[in-house]
Amino acid sequence: MLTCIERIKKDIEELAKFNATPGKGLTRFSFTEEDKGAREYIKMRMEEAGLEVYEDAAGTVVGRKKGCDDNLPVVMIGSHFDSVKNGGNFDGPAGVIAGLEIARVLHEKNIKTKHPMEFIAMIEEEGGRFGGGLFGSRAMAGKVSKHELETFKDENGITIGEAMRKFGFNPDDIDRARRDPKTLKAFFELHIEQGPVLEAEHKDAGIVDTIVGIDQYEVEITGRPDHAGTTPMNMRADALVLSSSVIQDINRLAKEAGEGTVATVGNLKVSPGAANIVPGKVVFTIDIRSRNGSIIKDIAGKIDGILKERCTAEGLSYRMESKISVPPVKLPEHIIQILKQKAEEMGLAYKQMMSGAGHDAMVMAGITDVGLIFVPSKAGRSHCPEEWTDYEQLQKGIELVLKAALEIAEVEKQ
Amino acid sequence: MLTCIERIKKDIEELAKFNATPGKGLTRFSFTEEDKGAREYIKMRMEEAGLEVYEDAAGTVVGRKKGCDDNLPVVMIGSHFDSVKNGGNFDGPAGVIAGLEIARVLHEKNIKTKHPMEFIAMIEEEGGRFGGGLFGSRAMAGKVSKHELETFKDENGITIGEAMRKFGFNPDDIDRARRDPKTLKAFFELHIEQGPVLEAEHKDAGIVDTIVGIDQYEVEITGRPDHAGTTPMNMRADALVLSSSVIQDINRLAKEAGEGTVATVGNLKVSPGAANIVPGKVVFTIDIRSRNGSIIKDIAGKIDGILKERCTAEGLSYRMESKISVPPVKLPEHIIQILKQKAEEMGLAYKQMMSGAGHDAMVMAGITDVGLIFVPSKAGRSHCPEEWTDYEQLQKGIELVLKAALEIAEVEKQ
Repeated sequence: MLTCIERIKKDIEELAKFNATPGKGLTRFSFTEEDKGAREYIKMRMEEAGLEVYEDAAGTVVGRKKGCDDNLPVVMIGSHFDSVKNGGNFDGPAGVIAGLEIARVLHEKNIKTKHPMEFIAMIEEEGGRFGGGLFGSRAMAGKVSKHELETFKDENGITIGEAMRKFGFNPDDIDRARRDPKTLKAFFELHIEQGPVLEAEHKDAGIVDTIVGIDQYEVEITGRPDHAGTTPMNMRADALVLSSSVIQDINRLAKEAGEGTVATVGNLKVSPGAANIVPGKVVFTIDIRSRNGSIIKDIAGKIDGILKERCTAEGLSYRMESKISVPPVKLPEHIIQILKQKAEEMGLAYKQMMSGAGHDAMVMAGITDVGLIFVPSKAGRSHCPEEWTDYEQLQKGIELVLKAALEIAEVEKQ
Repeated sequence: MLTCIERIKKDIEELAKFNATPGKGLTRFSFTEEDKGAREYIKMRMEEAGLEVYEDAAGTVVGRKKGCDDNLPVVMIGSHFDSVKNGGNFDGPAGVIAGLEIARVLHEKNIKTKHPMEFIAMIEEEGGRFGGGLFGSRAMAGKVSKHELETFKDENGITIGEAMRKFGFNPDDIDRARRDPKTLKAFFELHIEQGPVLEAEHKDAGIVDTIVGIDQYEVEITGRPDHAGTTPMNMRADALVLSSSVIQDINRLAKEAGEGTVATVGNLKVSPGAANIVPGKVVFTIDIRSRNGSIIKDIAGKIDGILKERCTAEGLSYRMESKISVPPVKLPEHIIQILKQKAEEMGLAYKQMMSGAGHDAMVMAGITDVGLIFVPSKAGRSHCPEEWTDYEQLQKGIELVLKAALEIAEVEKQ
């Protein structure tokens, strides 16, 4: 029942050719020529593996394998095949190819399951073109609104709805992509870790038990843009000096919190932004993630308190605005147990861990039981041309998904 | 011998009309239509005051009043009439108008001096159009190179030389603007303070004894742009966290140094600059000023040491590059004494102080004795539409310059 490393490598390399920015990493936005090329490739491979292929109303490619009892809820395996701008070849495709390869193995070995199985290739997970992200999975969960289809635009001002129509989909049908939770048994997603932990700890696979909660904030600090030469230090209201002190605290609070908590100021802009003018205004982002939702709220509250205290003391003002707030998602224990058991049987070095990013699995967890499996990312790099997972590692992860999914889908004895 | 507040007000208001951005502060770049309009206005006022008017090879307007012994070295009074983008009506023009008004008083009262006097209106002091700055004074000091004329460009790619030609000046003649120090007796510049000190201390005027030294650096800190969700806090190389800690130190070092030392990080850019990516690179400016040059070098050395230590400890790298280095300039004691004596005679509340900015006076101090007089800036605001000095205050400052300049130029008893 072994998966085939050569086929996996070929899929990665072939899919990488549908790329709007050759030589500058992979750029494959949704509802584009590159999407179409990759989509046709995936559909062809699915058909070769004996699957019944269709596309749902959100543009997700589905390859269905009948179950011996085809009315039972379905076991799904998949991920997304869109990319960020100038990204890598693995974020998304690794999980789509996991599905393709598993379908091929089942087809070759003529393995039948009680439950039907579906192999899934979603788009616009990254939000690279329209900014929303997690599009295919949100459509399955019934969480894509008409409003979003009409108002989210790409950088040329084209809405999702317009792009869909041009591509041959009808945005008015979006509700048809919705899946009734009763018809779903489980969703397995294999994904690259996008972080350095598995490699650093020499693990073959990560078995995710929790997807972090994420809060994002925008902070604006307003001081006074004084002349940098003529304004004594004690008469300034320097928005960057104050911001810098808060950034130190944000970093400290995350380090003290434990439970996989991270906090990042990823973007910061200074106005007016001249060497000889004291910064009058600074706007920065805060991204806080933790497996424990109350830690996130606690850190956000402390940051707000620090901002308040320091701005009051030094005569500046601030605004701290919530932009994103997603609670942590715990994945079901029985799936984790099956994955651990299979990993042990295979002799894999694995780590039970949290996922620091969302993934379609996070959305799917709202409508079915989810298993999320990480494979190591070389040097933790992701969303860049250097993104890499050794094919041997990828194959081990796919094998693990295959075994766990068959356990859930129940192999029919022949 | 009183100067006239109404005429001063009228000059400020009339000059403010030659403005490329009405309603958005004053923008008067050099060798433009606005320059031409202001220049014609100034020349007309100079001629009315009985001056012999010419323009030097750098575009500086000079109104000359013969001395009784016209071969004696000249006493100059003036400043610049260009502005920053979206600046105010006082930075520069206040000092040009000081010259106009003093010329009018001398003309009306038929006051003759032994030394010739020149009333000076320079351009491109701010470097608003071509970036170099202090253009008129540097030309007088022989410090404008052919290279600069051919390579410094405005945002439309026009060189200084091209702009001069189009405006009717010949850049090949630039050396003719050079003034032989032997022919110069003194240069007086009245300027707005551009800082909050005089207003806060209820002073009428500032008598500058030192122009600060200025060092500017560019610092680039290189870390690693990791995923903000999947990279644990202890596996990051966050360029912004490190930069923030250094900004705190820069601020502290300036506060501890005394002697009017200030240090500012005025601009900072984060790459890649996304909420969910750990900052991989940060570039920021450092501007350090002090009346004591060795304090500047000491602070710069300490910052370099902190950068080295912290980058080494945390696995990042940095580059700290000197961009500008100008030593402090002490102004001549006998001019300061005359200014103090005249201020006392007038009953002015004055403050002997340093100048935190350069001004044309700094360059002129290299070729002649300089007196630099500040008038209060409302709330310390400058380089913005709110820039303001009460006309009464401006008039007092002009009166002070008049009295001191006449002392040096030696009034001829009639």
